[in-house]
Amino acid sequence: MSRLKKEFTIKTSKSIENMKSLDLLFKPRNVVIFEAKPKVGYFIEGLKSQGFNLENLYLISPSKDELSGLKCYNSFDDLPIETIDLLILSIKRDLVIQALNNIFSKKKVNFIHFFTAGMSESDEEGLFIENQIRRILENPEITTRAIGPNCFGIYCPSGNNSYMPFFPNKSGNIAIISHSGDILSRTVGNGALIYNLTFSKGASIGNCVSLQVSDFLEYFNQDEETDIILIYFEGFSRYEKLEGRKLFELLINMRKPVLILRGGKTKRGQSAVLSHTGSLGTPERIWHALYKQTPLIEVGSSIEEVIDHLYFFYEFYKKNRDLSLDAKIDKLPKGKNALVIIWSGGIGIIDTDVLTELGFNLPLFKGEKEEKLNKIYPVKIGSLSNPLDLPWVSRSEKYLELCKEAISEDIDIVFMHTDARFGRNLKKRLDNLTKIKNYVESQNKILILILPETPEKNRIRYFRALVENGFIVFPELMRAGKAYLALYNYGIKIKKMENRI
Amino acid sequence: MSRLKKEFTIKTSKSIENMKSLDLLFKPRNVVIFEAKPKVGYFIEGLKSQGFNLENLYLISPSKDELSGLKCYNSFDDLPIETIDLLILSIKRDLVIQALNNIFSKKKVNFIHFFTAGMSESDEEGLFIENQIRRILENPEITTRAIGPNCFGIYCPSGNNSYMPFFPNKSGNIAIISHSGDILSRTVGNGALIYNLTFSKGASIGNCVSLQVSDFLEYFNQDEETDIILIYFEGFSRYEKLEGRKLFELLINMRKPVLILRGGKTKRGQSAVLSHTGSLGTPERIWHALYKQTPLIEVGSSIEEVIDHLYFFYEFYKKNRDLSLDAKIDKLPKGKNALVIIWSGGIGIIDTDVLTELGFNLPLFKGEKEEKLNKIYPVKIGSLSNPLDLPWVSRSEKYLELCKEAISEDIDIVFMHTDARFGRNLKKRLDNLTKIKNYVESQNKILILILPETPEKNRIRYFRALVENGFIVFPELMRAGKAYLALYNYGIKIKKMENRI
Repeated sequence: MSRLKKEFTIKTSKSIENMKSLDLLFKPRNVVIFEAKPKVGYFIEGLKSQGFNLENLYLISPSKDELSGLKCYNSFDDLPIETIDLLILSIKRDLVIQALNNIFSKKKVNFIHFFTAGMSESDEEGLFIENQIRRILENPEITTRAIGPNCFGIYCPSGNNSYMPFFPNKSGNIAIISHSGDILSRTVGNGALIYNLTFSKGASIGNCVSLQVSDFLEYFNQDEETDIILIYFEGFSRYEKLEGRKLFELLINMRKPVLILRGGKTKRGQSAVLSHTGSLGTPERIWHALYKQTPLIEVGSSIEEVIDHLYFFYEFYKKNRDLSLDAKIDKLPKGKNALVIIWSGGIGIIDTDVLTELGFNLPLFKGEKEEKLNKIYPVKIGSLSNPLDLPWVSRSEKYLELCKEAISEDIDIVFMHTDARFGRNLKKRLDNLTKIKNYVESQNKILILILPETPEKNRIRYFRALVENGFIVFPELMRAGKAYLALYNYGIKIKKMENRI
Repeated sequence: MSRLKKEFTIKTSKSIENMKSLDLLFKPRNVVIFEAKPKVGYFIEGLKSQGFNLENLYLISPSKDELSGLKCYNSFDDLPIETIDLLILSIKRDLVIQALNNIFSKKKVNFIHFFTAGMSESDEEGLFIENQIRRILENPEITTRAIGPNCFGIYCPSGNNSYMPFFPNKSGNIAIISHSGDILSRTVGNGALIYNLTFSKGASIGNCVSLQVSDFLEYFNQDEETDIILIYFEGFSRYEKLEGRKLFELLINMRKPVLILRGGKTKRGQSAVLSHTGSLGTPERIWHALYKQTPLIEVGSSIEEVIDHLYFFYEFYKKNRDLSLDAKIDKLPKGKNALVIIWSGGIGIIDTDVLTELGFNLPLFKGEKEEKLNKIYPVKIGSLSNPLDLPWVSRSEKYLELCKEAISEDIDIVFMHTDARFGRNLKKRLDNLTKIKNYVESQNKILILILPETPEKNRIRYFRALVENGFIVFPELMRAGKAYLALYNYGIKIKKMENRI
C-alpha cells in the first residue's frame, strides 16, 4: 500500500512557496479595482454577493467620486493601503503599461487580474503590449504575479471572492482552472443550478502572461478544500517553454483526479483558439501519453458532460470526505458489472445495448441465481434476468427482497429507473428507494437513479427530494454510465500508478 | 424531377385495403374491454381523456356491474352491438383461447388488442398459447386482425383513442410503431412535455402474432395525418417469414422519413430482447443495406435522442406543411456549412470541435468577407471569424447587420447560443432574435438556438416564449447538430433515390 516515489517529485520548498503565494489571490485581504466604471459593476456585485468586507474594496476612478454606492479614489496616490493583495485592472490596452509603471512605483502588489482583452489573441499590437507586461513582471524586483490578460478572474467562496454575482456562497470540493471565463462561469453556474454542486476555487486565466495552468494545478493538489480538479485547456502558453514538462511531472504525482475538457482538438478548432486565447496547439500523441501515464481523465466535448462528470465525482468525494486519501482510493469503483432495474420493458433493452457498448458487463442471471430470484417472486410478466423488469411488484415487499438478491457480490453498480409521473405517493416511493440505497451502500456498491429530464413541476420536486435524500440522480443512462466509467478508470489508473494493483 | 419507379412497387389494391382496415383500429366506432377490472382503469381513463364517446365503450365483467362509473355487461351475449371495432383483451393467458372461440361464435370483431402478456416472451406454455391464437386468426372465415399480445395498445388523438390518460389531445404529424409500449409512452409523453410534440398515431405492437411492423409502415406512408414515422424495433416476428422483404420493399418506396431506434443491437441486448418480445435478431449487414438503400435513418440509443430528432423533423414538416411532397423534399437541408454565433469565448472553441467532429464545415471568414464584417463593426474583443464571438454588441443595431453579413450564401445552418440568465429584458432580446430568425428563413436557411438545460424558472419561461415564437431551441449543441444531420442525410438519400441529384 506504500506510495510509489516518482523520480520527478516536485521540490517541497517550491510547493509551499507556491501555495502561500496563491492564497492571497483566492483570499485577498483587500481588492482594488481600476478603473471603476459601470462595466466592472459585476466584479463589485460578485464580491458583495460573497460577503466580501467592502471596507477592504477600493475603487479607483480619475473622474468618478462614487460607483455602486461606494467611494472612488481618484488615483493610486490616494489609496490608504501600501500593499494591494488583488488588483483588478480593467483599462484600455494602450494604457496598461503606463499604469503598471505608475502603480509599481507607488505600491506593492501581490496579484493582478488583467481583465483587459484585445491582447495577443487579437493582433500584433496586442501581442506587443502583452510582451511588455511580461517583461515588466520578469523584473526581479517585482514580486507581483498575475492572471490574464483576457480573463474573468477568480472565484473562491471561502475567500468571499467572486467575479460574478450568481455563484454559490457555499464552499465545496471542486477546483477549476480555465482558459475560458465563459466555461468556468457556465460550469459553476449551471452545475450549482442543476446538481447543487459547490466549488472550492475557480480561476479564469486567459492568455497566461504570468501564472500558468501548472501553478494552479500544484496549488490545488495541496489545497485541503479541493478533492477534484477540472481544467479547461486550450493550449500551452507562449511564455513558458517548460510548461508541458512541468504539467507532466505534476500530473504523474497527483493524488487527486484531474478532469480535462480540451478546446481546439480539431484543426478547425485550433484556428478558433488563436482568436480566443492565442494558445499553441499540442500534438495528439502528447495527450495520449498523458492520459495513459497520469491520472488525467478526458471529458468529452460539452459543458453538460463536464457537469455530469463533476457531479458524480463530487458525490463520491463528499460521501468519503472523512476518509484518508489512501482509504478514498480504496473506495473507488472496482468493476464494470452492472445491474439494471426498470419498471417496464423496452427501455431495458436499450439500456442493455448502451451499457454493453460503453464497456459494461451485465451478468445474466441464470441457474441457481435465477432459481433464487424465482423463489422470492415468480414473475410471469417482466423479467428476472438483468435487466430486472418488475412492472407489477414495485410497491410490494418482494421488491426489496428481489433487489437485494440481485445485487449480490458480483454487481458493482446499480442503475435504476424511476419516474415522477406515476409517483402519486412520493413518500412511500422514497422510503422504498432509500431502503434499496442503504442496502446497496452497505455492500460498498453504487446506486444511480435515472430520472428523465422533463420540465414538469412534479419532476423538479421529485428530483429535489431525491438529491436532498442523498441519491445520485442522472437524467439519462448513457450520461450516468460515462460518468461512472470516468471514476472507475481514474481508480484503475491511480491504483496502478501507486502499485496497488 | 420525376419520381423514380421502383420495380418493387407495392400493389395499390392491397395498400388501399390495408389502409381501410387499419382505420378502425385507430378510430374505432366502439371499444369493448374484457375483462373490466381495476387494472385496466387506465384504458378507460385514456379513452375518457381523449373525449371518446363513452356510449360506445362497453365493459365486460362476469362479476362486476360497474367500474369507474360505467356499467359492466356480464357476458358477450349481453352486448347490444353485433360488430366490435376494437376489443381490448385483458384476461389470464390460460383463458385466452376459450374466450376467443366464444367471442368469435357470437360477434364480428375487426381488431383485437391482446394486452395479455406472459406469452412467447415468457416460456414454452406462453409460446404454445400464442401459436394457438395465430392458428385461430389464420382461419379464413375470421377477418379479425390483432396487435400484441404483450402490448399497451393504440394512441390516436384524431380517433379519440388512447391507452393512457396523459397523452396530448391535439393531433400532430408523427406516427410511431413500437415493439415496446414503454418506449412509445415515453416518446409521446416526454416529447409533449419537453418540446410540445404532437402525434398522429401510435401503436404498441408487442409480439406481433397478427399485424406486423410492415402493415403499419404501409398504412402510415399513405396516412395524410403523418409526415414522420418512428419505429422502435426489436427484431422480426416469428410469424411472418417475408416480413424482412416486405419492409425493404416498402422502405425503398417510402416518401416520408422513417427514423428507427433499434433494441438488441448488441449480443447481450439480444438476450434481453428474448425475454421482452421474443423477437428474432437480424444480422448487421441487413441493417447496413437498409440504411444505405432506403430513407431509413438510425437514431442513436436513447429516448432523449429520439425525441430530439423527432422535434427537429417535426418543426421542419410543420413549417412546410402546406407544400407538396416534392416541394418538401426540395426544402430539405442542402449542406453542412455552419455558422456559430456566441456571446462569449470558450464555448465557441468547444462548438467548433464538436461540429467539426460531427462532419460540419465552419467556413473561416477571411479576406473580403472579413473586411466587410470589420467595416460593419470592428470588434476589438471577440472574433468575427466564425464562431462570431460578439460579447459587447448583442444589444446594438450592428448585431443584426453583422449576423446578416455572416449568414450570406455559403452558410446552411446557424447555431446561436442564448441564455436566460442575462435576459433581464426578454422582450427586447426576443425582438432581436426574431429579426435574425426572419432573415435566416428568408434566405432558406435554418436557425437553431442553443439554450442550456437548467431548472430555473427564467429558463423555463424563456424556453416557452422562444418555442411559442416559432424558434427551434435545443439544450445542447451536439444534440442539435445530430438532429440536423439526420434530416440532412435523409434529404441526400431521398433525392438520390428519386434521381434528383
